[in-house]
Amino acid sequence: MDYYSVQIRELIEQLNSLPGIGTKSAQRLAFHILNLPEENVKKLSDTIVNARTKVRYCRECFTLTDNELCPICSNPARDKKTIMVVEDTKDLAAYEKTQKYQGVYHVLHGAISPMLGIGPEDIRLKELMTRLAGDVEEVIIATNSSLEGETTAMYLSKLIKPTGIRVTRIASGVPVGGDLEYIDEVTLLRALEGRTEL
Amino acid sequence: MDYYSVQIRELIEQLNSLPGIGTKSAQRLAFHILNLPEENVKKLSDTIVNARTKVRYCRECFTLTDNELCPICSNPARDKKTIMVVEDTKDLAAYEKTQKYQGVYHVLHGAISPMLGIGPEDIRLKELMTRLAGDVEEVIIATNSSLEGETTAMYLSKLIKPTGIRVTRIASGVPVGGDLEYIDEVTLLRALEGRTEL
Repeated sequence: MDYYSVQIRELIEQLNSLPGIGTKSAQRLAFHILNLPEENVKKLSDTIVNARTKVRYCRECFTLTDNELCPICSNPARDKKTIMVVEDTKDLAAYEKTQKYQGVYHVLHGAISPMLGIGPEDIRLKELMTRLAGDVEEVIIATNSSLEGETTAMYLSKLIKPTGIRVTRIASGVPVGGDLEYIDEVTLLRALEGRTEL
Repeated sequence: MDYYSVQIRELIEQLNSLPGIGTKSAQRLAFHILNLPEENVKKLSDTIVNARTKVRYCRECFTLTDNELCPICSNPARDKKTIMVVEDTKDLAAYEKTQKYQGVYHVLHGAISPMLGIGPEDIRLKELMTRLAGDVEEVIIATNSSLEGETTAMYLSKLIKPTGIRVTRIASGVPVGGDLEYIDEVTLLRALEGRTEL
């Protein structure tokens, strides 16, 4: 890549290191950026750093947010007695898009995966158990319908049932092997309505 | 998108504004960035600003580079009497990858397009004509084989021919390894017209 100057080469390499961006896309993006007005580029760069430095975990549900409490946990209208457990913030966003769920969430930031060496201690499970010591009536397990998601659901239900709290699992209206993030709202709602006792 | 904090929303919006990056990709990229170590994010951001602020046009050929003269124009081994005219820096890079072309380039930064209102004065044509006042033997027109590229090639050849400098156009035809069956009629006809003696 000697025909590009160092800065262009570095820019292409950096963009290329992002997921889903191949060499050609990285090149196209790089030249797009080089042709943007300087203030737009500054804004893009600032937004990236800003998001990374200012965003942190919600004290309650561990979703990514910019305050100590996320907008959902700090909303008095939300039902704090119902906790939906999801794998990550994108899954929370997927359920929020349905605009029907009134409870709160708990973001695990992963799922148990013996294959990848991710155990119960590597996700936000302990924090969930701490929350359950409070006034909670139902835990809805909405981990993905993948092997890891199902494993996590099983593990969770075994852990929570002895406490007497109702444990439910979203219905398998979600296609097996599907990722919550990519599923349409109607299917997500169908799955919520059809949740069953574990 | 109230379920995301302002910073995450802005990051997704900024990424979404880049070419070829839809909402889903932007979301995935945003969360990838949020999970990167802080120094990597800083590096990504710096690289973007750095490239945009340090990169400028080569004084001779107008490719994007970081010096007054690009590595090609400042290389004494390159044949300055042969100029290949390309639409943009990516096209220059494509020819450099062949490692066979020994001449220099001229980057137009666009092509004439009456449809988009881009005229000869909007691309680096005047600068090319200035260069031709020097010691130049051949101008190879390597604009794209699109309507705009062909229009530009025609315009250029009419402009340069009276100066007595040799003007050539890269051949268009069936790509190497291409299967005739899948090639469009226009290309097939072009290949037929451009047939050479064996």
